[in-house]
Amino acid sequence: MIVVLKPGVDQEKKERLIQWLEHQGLKVHVSDGELHTVLGLVGDPSHLDLDLVGSLEIVDKVSRVTEPFKCCNRHFHPEDTVVSAGGVPVGGGHFAMIAGPCSVETEEQIVTVAKAVKAAGADLLRGGAFKPRTSPYDFSGLKATGLELLRIARAETGLPIVTELMDVRDLELFADVDVIQVGARNMQNFDLLRELGRSDKPVLLKRGLASTLRELLMSAEYIMSGGNEQVILCERGIRTYSDYTRNTLDLSAVPMLHELSHLPVIVDPSHATGMARLVPPMAMAAAAAGADGLMVEVHNDPLRALCDGAQSLRPEEYAELARKVREIRKVVTA
Amino acid sequence: MIVVLKPGVDQEKKERLIQWLEHQGLKVHVSDGELHTVLGLVGDPSHLDLDLVGSLEIVDKVSRVTEPFKCCNRHFHPEDTVVSAGGVPVGGGHFAMIAGPCSVETEEQIVTVAKAVKAAGADLLRGGAFKPRTSPYDFSGLKATGLELLRIARAETGLPIVTELMDVRDLELFADVDVIQVGARNMQNFDLLRELGRSDKPVLLKRGLASTLRELLMSAEYIMSGGNEQVILCERGIRTYSDYTRNTLDLSAVPMLHELSHLPVIVDPSHATGMARLVPPMAMAAAAAGADGLMVEVHNDPLRALCDGAQSLRPEEYAELARKVREIRKVVTA
Amino acid sequence: MIVVLKPGVDQEKKERLIQWLEHQGLKVHVSDGELHTVLGLVGDPSHLDLDLVGSLEIVDKVSRVTEPFKCCNRHFHPEDTVVSAGGVPVGGGHFAMIAGPCSVETEEQIVTVAKAVKAAGADLLRGGAFKPRTSPYDFSGLKATGLELLRIARAETGLPIVTELMDVRDLELFADVDVIQVGARNMQNFDLLRELGRSDKPVLLKRGLASTLRELLMSAEYIMSGGNEQVILCERGIRTYSDYTRNTLDLSAVPMLHELSHLPVIVDPSHATGMARLVPPMAMAAAAAGADGLMVEVHNDPLRALCDGAQSLRPEEYAELARKVREIRKVVTA
Amino acid sequence: MIVVLKPGVDQEKKERLIQWLEHQGLKVHVSDGELHTVLGLVGDPSHLDLDLVGSLEIVDKVSRVTEPFKCCNRHFHPEDTVVSAGGVPVGGGHFAMIAGPCSVETEEQIVTVAKAVKAAGADLLRGGAFKPRTSPYDFSGLKATGLELLRIARAETGLPIVTELMDVRDLELFADVDVIQVGARNMQNFDLLRELGRSDKPVLLKRGLASTLRELLMSAEYIMSGGNEQVILCERGIRTYSDYTRNTLDLSAVPMLHELSHLPVIVDPSHATGMARLVPPMAMAAAAAGADGLMVEVHNDPLRALCDGAQSLRPEEYAELARKVREIRKVVTA
Repeated sequence: MIVVLKPGVDQEKKERLIQWLEHQGLKVHVSDGELHTVLGLVGDPSHLDLDLVGSLEIVDKVSRVTEPFKCCNRHFHPEDTVVSAGGVPVGGGHFAMIAGPCSVETEEQIVTVAKAVKAAGADLLRGGAFKPRTSPYDFSGLKATGLELLRIARAETGLPIVTELMDVRDLELFADVDVIQVGARNMQNFDLLRELGRSDKPVLLKRGLASTLRELLMSAEYIMSGGNEQVILCERGIRTYSDYTRNTLDLSAVPMLHELSHLPVIVDPSHATGMARLVPPMAMAAAAAGADGLMVEVHNDPLRALCDGAQSLRPEEYAELARKVREIRKVVTA
Repeated sequence: MIVVLKPGVDQEKKERLIQWLEHQGLKVHVSDGELHTVLGLVGDPSHLDLDLVGSLEIVDKVSRVTEPFKCCNRHFHPEDTVVSAGGVPVGGGHFAMIAGPCSVETEEQIVTVAKAVKAAGADLLRGGAFKPRTSPYDFSGLKATGLELLRIARAETGLPIVTELMDVRDLELFADVDVIQVGARNMQNFDLLRELGRSDKPVLLKRGLASTLRELLMSAEYIMSGGNEQVILCERGIRTYSDYTRNTLDLSAVPMLHELSHLPVIVDPSHATGMARLVPPMAMAAAAAGADGLMVEVHNDPLRALCDGAQSLRPEEYAELARKVREIRKVVTA
Repeated sequence: MIVVLKPGVDQEKKERLIQWLEHQGLKVHVSDGELHTVLGLVGDPSHLDLDLVGSLEIVDKVSRVTEPFKCCNRHFHPEDTVVSAGGVPVGGGHFAMIAGPCSVETEEQIVTVAKAVKAAGADLLRGGAFKPRTSPYDFSGLKATGLELLRIARAETGLPIVTELMDVRDLELFADVDVIQVGARNMQNFDLLRELGRSDKPVLLKRGLASTLRELLMSAEYIMSGGNEQVILCERGIRTYSDYTRNTLDLSAVPMLHELSHLPVIVDPSHATGMARLVPPMAMAAAAAGADGLMVEVHNDPLRALCDGAQSLRPEEYAELARKVREIRKVVTA
Repeated sequence: MIVVLKPGVDQEKKERLIQWLEHQGLKVHVSDGELHTVLGLVGDPSHLDLDLVGSLEIVDKVSRVTEPFKCCNRHFHPEDTVVSAGGVPVGGGHFAMIAGPCSVETEEQIVTVAKAVKAAGADLLRGGAFKPRTSPYDFSGLKATGLELLRIARAETGLPIVTELMDVRDLELFADVDVIQVGARNMQNFDLLRELGRSDKPVLLKRGLASTLRELLMSAEYIMSGGNEQVILCERGIRTYSDYTRNTLDLSAVPMLHELSHLPVIVDPSHATGMARLVPPMAMAAAAAGADGLMVEVHNDPLRALCDGAQSLRPEEYAELARKVREIRKVVTA
């Protein structure tokens, strides 16, 4: 960690800060510039409150040298992690196609969609049983019944299932789920993350709407430091001023996360854009950017079937997309 | 709700959409413009999935006419709500000064600070027992012990206590707390909100880092629709590109929330800015913007005492700030 | 345009507003809902001040039905525009590879890089002669001499040249340039745009750092409404809270702009990411998202040559990238 | 400047970088940590391309120690600058009330408003003659005629005039203007800034919609380094994801700019919020945050007069606001 002091700081205050830092077990290198004094701290400053030090009157700024995440840091683990998602490998060259409806509605619906996405080349089935809804008046999922329907669809197709856990108290209902999804709004639900760290289930961790990459990795760290190293990161769009799409898909996060961490990184273009017609171009772009997988919503919704034309992501369109994505993967990994 | 169709849409698709909307129990007014057809929906569209309708091929855009929040909507409840926070009124002309340390550390610390802030004019004591921390390696609070120390400080000073609940499973530990705080990261932890809706405790609900005012109000709605109408909203800074302060305090949210809702709105300038020296100007600005209260961190931290000069928010500085805030209130409400 | 009135508005004020709107030449459809009255305006409201109407006491919100841009609007011009950039077609299925150094430095440098990028398959040469610099103390380009060196490089390689104009007073120095670039910071320099509208040169218009797609298109409209229809749009990253990359490349802008407008859309991954090692994945992603071209910085900088390894974008790396981009284009357009 | 190298960098590459930095005239302090090597650069690194160094393969991150602005830096000029705006002092304890209509429309309009705001206590008159408009189809101001009408209003009231210059070619038309305003969209129109640096007129420099404080100060630096030290900074709202107000007024910029610079800082609540009814609370908040002045739009617009009630900012409402602002100033500066 580096601490830059303000110009012309009082010598005594400076000495007291240095003593205090040494008292925290750090070695302090002092380097006096023309204007500023710079303190270089050697040792493990991870327990130090950066904000507290930065808020001191004599301090101009503080910056970290070492990233605060360890378990998920590529520096300490150069090889790609391959997560086994119900038997399907994700990461380290293995590309995973996850598809399914937004919500599980009926047995017929989920089994039909599961068969269709399997035929189109999907590796895993997604479907929401517990749905985070901005409004208390909106449908919040079939809950335990939805999980049961997912299990039926798995039995029918052999596709492992991915579904979202919202409340830590529901964890045992998920005992039979293959991959537990943590939604964007729960990315910093630290008690939930800690509990998942004690589990042996793979976790698909979505980036929060306003989370930095460091915060996403620190949340992965919560899970991994508890002993569960099976974490898949997921970019799903961030909140920006731009208002034509629901969120802004930050695809540069894919290569950047690969540089910082050994964990697999997948992309969810459906939630990022909020428009079915933008899903194919953004899914292909994600594959080209080096993602380890895609999570895509596939509908057989009657309203869409009724009103939509060639642009909606019906099963046959997903099949076409899946084919193109595989070709792009070949170009990228050649 | 208003649905604008794309220019030149297929007549048959348009008819099918109108039928489908009518089937949802809505009356549809069709108005054909030169280029666009506009559908005005009358009835209660709150169960309708706006995103689904907006994603249809023939739809150009969708916009709400009626806000989706009801319980907290000023239209239906023109009078200001006055929340009773452990006997202290907040809102409707009653200004609440909440102060205390970031974390509860020791009995001596919390009692000392509690006495100091009371002397300076604070109405409520804040202090963290369960601390949300970005890193799993950071101190996460004294937990139940911290709550116990807060109760001691309350007994010594008479100040009601405000403290954060993170995990729904800890709710019964909070039975004796006066105001339960929901942190910014939990603003959309819907299961926690629902549980608090069944409680009779006042809830201080902080705006999420990237939440719109509508989302904040929908989260209040989760609590209120469960029967608990004692909600205090709190602006605490939003995440923007601007990097000189930790977050950007959005003070225009104060008058805007007052226009949209009857709930009291307080401001937390400490977390918004992350710098003690910016707290006094921003606290005064919040009072001038019409806030119903302030939540301010007051430290008696030895490092700060050691190194900081006139700018740190020590108890005597808080007293000075409280005095000026009261004078500004007089000007604003005159 | 749709104007939603607040619930319970005064009847007389409502009548006065309707009369005023009719006086502006608009036909007003009034539709009274349970809570809100909605006014639908038919006619051309483009001269109306949306902000003024929206700020009226009785108005709840205002939303546009028709986009305010006309010349660049795909509704009125369904066919893709193909811009002729010094003889090189851009858009409508023609993919343009633009490459070159950030700044023109010496004749040897620009000619060497021009030959190298041509050999790698570039169609146009870029290079800055007038450089926008945040600091007045930084090198701001070779100016007229730089333009002269670009002309020499064009003569040596046959590549048309693209270079940035900053000051409207320099326009005649650009008489011999093939494509005039308007930088992100000048996207709303309206006098410059108007002047370019009177020119017959193709204009490469970069999206501003915080510009919406509508604002970008309105800036294109400034040029086109003056008579110059040769405009190429360029996505180059937007400013968000995310701080690992310099800006956030908003690739969903590519399909969205294609939907809204008939103009070609290219992507600049170099400025968006600010890191050479992120350029290849983001360039491939842009091609996969359907961009009509790429503008990439290629260096032969001695410091980079000295210190960088396999990740810097040296000419041979650009050649490799260009090859992969062409293969991705084949997949996308198949 | 501090350069942090990646863990395990090649010794030879490290040496070459150090040599190259020394060759640029800098002294390099090397400090080897457990994981990272940190280079501290002593000397003037302001001509160094931070982005170039940061993009090197062996470099992890680069951070500045010394701010790149000099003329406007409070470190080198601890006393507040007092700008003389047509004889009215701004800054250093002098609070300036600037008011007037958005656009100059007629002689009667501007003279009427000028007299009204003068009576309400305004110190300077604002009014737009050259108007930046997002759309080429919108009214762009009366131009030279508008300037003439402003001069008439000044003659009638004695109020100095503030008005916006957009095009550097119009500079001589502004010879008789008291304060030249540079709008948010032109904050990085570097050629315009340089030209104003050669002028002797006070410049009111608005912060760009997505500009950091450092960028704002670097733009002030363009003017000041040319010899014109009469610069007033203006916060007018930044672009964020928040969509209830037009922009988000960043009031913490006020104390932060005062810490970084000796220049006066004023606030424009009208453009920031876009809603007349939010202007009074935000204007009072700006005064409480320590601003050196306010720029407020005062209308005598017939539509507003027709439809608006107590919330519009008519002259009598401005008078009431001005009175409260003066009282808040007394509390703050006591």
